[in-house]
Amino acid sequence: MSSPKIVILGAGYGGIITAVRLQKKLRANEAEVTLVNKNEYHYQSTALHESSAGTLHHDRTRVKIKDVVNFNKINFVQAEVISIQPDEKKVTLANGDLEYDYLVIGLGFESATFGIPGLKEYAFSITNINSARLIREHIEYNFAKFHNEVEKQQSRLNIVVGGAGFTGIEFVGELANRIPELCKEYDIDRAQVRIINVEGAPTIMPGFHPDLIEYAQNSLEARGVEFITGAMLQECTPEGIIYEKDGEKHEIPTKTLVWAAGVKANSIVEESGFETNRGKIEVTPELRAPDYDDVFVVGDCALVMNEETGNPYPPTAQIAIQHADTVADNLLRIIRGNDELKTFEPVIRGTVASLGHNDAVGEVFGRNLYGWPATVMKKAIDNRYLLKLGGLGLMFKKGKLNVFY
Amino acid sequence: MSSPKIVILGAGYGGIITAVRLQKKLRANEAEVTLVNKNEYHYQSTALHESSAGTLHHDRTRVKIKDVVNFNKINFVQAEVISIQPDEKKVTLANGDLEYDYLVIGLGFESATFGIPGLKEYAFSITNINSARLIREHIEYNFAKFHNEVEKQQSRLNIVVGGAGFTGIEFVGELANRIPELCKEYDIDRAQVRIINVEGAPTIMPGFHPDLIEYAQNSLEARGVEFITGAMLQECTPEGIIYEKDGEKHEIPTKTLVWAAGVKANSIVEESGFETNRGKIEVTPELRAPDYDDVFVVGDCALVMNEETGNPYPPTAQIAIQHADTVADNLLRIIRGNDELKTFEPVIRGTVASLGHNDAVGEVFGRNLYGWPATVMKKAIDNRYLLKLGGLGLMFKKGKLNVFY
Repeated sequence: MSSPKIVILGAGYGGIITAVRLQKKLRANEAEVTLVNKNEYHYQSTALHESSAGTLHHDRTRVKIKDVVNFNKINFVQAEVISIQPDEKKVTLANGDLEYDYLVIGLGFESATFGIPGLKEYAFSITNINSARLIREHIEYNFAKFHNEVEKQQSRLNIVVGGAGFTGIEFVGELANRIPELCKEYDIDRAQVRIINVEGAPTIMPGFHPDLIEYAQNSLEARGVEFITGAMLQECTPEGIIYEKDGEKHEIPTKTLVWAAGVKANSIVEESGFETNRGKIEVTPELRAPDYDDVFVVGDCALVMNEETGNPYPPTAQIAIQHADTVADNLLRIIRGNDELKTFEPVIRGTVASLGHNDAVGEVFGRNLYGWPATVMKKAIDNRYLLKLGGLGLMFKKGKLNVFY
Repeated sequence: MSSPKIVILGAGYGGIITAVRLQKKLRANEAEVTLVNKNEYHYQSTALHESSAGTLHHDRTRVKIKDVVNFNKINFVQAEVISIQPDEKKVTLANGDLEYDYLVIGLGFESATFGIPGLKEYAFSITNINSARLIREHIEYNFAKFHNEVEKQQSRLNIVVGGAGFTGIEFVGELANRIPELCKEYDIDRAQVRIINVEGAPTIMPGFHPDLIEYAQNSLEARGVEFITGAMLQECTPEGIIYEKDGEKHEIPTKTLVWAAGVKANSIVEESGFETNRGKIEVTPELRAPDYDDVFVVGDCALVMNEETGNPYPPTAQIAIQHADTVADNLLRIIRGNDELKTFEPVIRGTVASLGHNDAVGEVFGRNLYGWPATVMKKAIDNRYLLKLGGLGLMFKKGKLNVFY
């Protein structure tokens, strides 16, 4: 009898931690595991806003898969996933098909544009290494162009960020630190550059504690970030954006809209015929797809309800990593003939949002943190993940070890 | 009686050396000297190809004027020159007028596009700090975009350089070194990137010794530069270029044409009504404008015939600096009542073209140089200039002191 085939789609937080945990716990020939990923690298999507602003090189946020996955134990296929045929227990890749006995879907998120005209065409999104590098270069390119035109265009120096949630806030925090450097590089007066955050809710960071919101807003405004709250984006064009606030339409000329106001699950999930809720698979307590016992879901493609609040758990790295632990353990139980699967019990340690490398706010184990202690905690969370992913070596290589500034 | 007013237009090689020499030799109240320049800095235009390729930061190629000119001795006006009225002994600046008793025109060069359609609109030129920064960023931006498009466009990775004269050759030499770094930065296979030099003459580096040409071509081709000689550029569009060779038209898709096939004198000279030859003022042996004894010309705006060859001396930094020495000395003689002016006697020490920081070819005092000795000579020429401009301090700060690679 041949060993069961486990296929993991995606090497984001959920997929790669599932692979690494299986690699650690599987005995020889217990299962044949194949990890499929578009790129030869894994990246920390929680750090992409830094690479997008140009404050952290993208090589610091990515890890070669071969450096954390042992290819003698786990097969690696570098390919784009096209579709899943759960009834045939098959996956179609850009360069062929793969059959499985057990599937782990960890295909991550994509930007949600909510049908706003022009957003898909003209807005940037902090989605992956390629898009982060492009945002960084797009901002620089517009700064470089500024002094090369007879008619100088303010739209080249207006950077608009849509959404003041977690990513939007962390991104403007990095921009606030980066822009003065860019001004020096391109001989531009800092006062000419605008960083404008447009948010639909009445305050920034909806859902956060009011004290944290106030702290964050003060910190960012002091560094020149402008907030426009209660403003709904109506349209994006190559020349700017139009938003509505208090029933009136306003325009901001800009060549740079970074849309950070919404993500959704990878649309392959819905297109492959799975029953979805807001584009995600509402998984069983064991993290299985409802109609397919052989399909597990991790990360942003999985919807798990928080029974206490009646809302789903947010799509965070923290949750994705915990999904992966549960799924890896459940796969081990199944292939070892144990029918009693673990149910997913999230441990919410807290959330810290950085406001640039030197400031942060957050809530950890129910306590509000501001400034330096919050930055320390933020870096500790990152380093803890790297330790889990690739051990001490990786943590020292890619970790944020300087906690003193 | 008030002291005579000397106005120097432009702080390029010719203008700034005139100012520095006058500052050194003038006694108190002998003359009132005003230097006018668009920017608060002087730059070495001979190094702009490096900043354009991204191999040398532009701050290494520029010097703040206040660091080499003593503003207690020389007035500095940061303004754009609009026109010269030699009959009224007046200069119009963007922000007002200036009267003079003696004028030094050192307004430098601009790109010559020879009426080729699309060149003015779509080609880049290595003209000043702003355009050099833009070329660097334009190349990076296209590399960054490459992986962000479903339909990948080869035109983003084709870099075409028009002209295989001095600047064109030096620029492709820098690109050949820079492109492998950019490929790593943007996850692009080096083999996908093309550096194409298109030259109208039958060989590259027209006018150089055949041995030097052969050496340069081998060195550059070995690093992946393609040469198309005997090819006349017909048109430039946002999507590419069209050239004619052997009576046939060819197309190269590219978003990056850097035009390095011709420069002309600043067009202000011609527009101000001076008699010109190829856009330049054919100066007297004392470097005066023929019809105006009170107007001197230095650098690329001056045309001096080489009686031996019957051709004008080339528009080089070497010549501009020597112009400046002559003009400064003649101004001193005039204001001290000495009617016997110096005539310009150029000393041609030689020419070295770099092929990247680690290779070069040239002719120095009639001897051909290749490889490392040529790179040493090239750096020595640069350092010698900085020494002349701002003394040892400047040479150590901005010089190319590492001659061992």
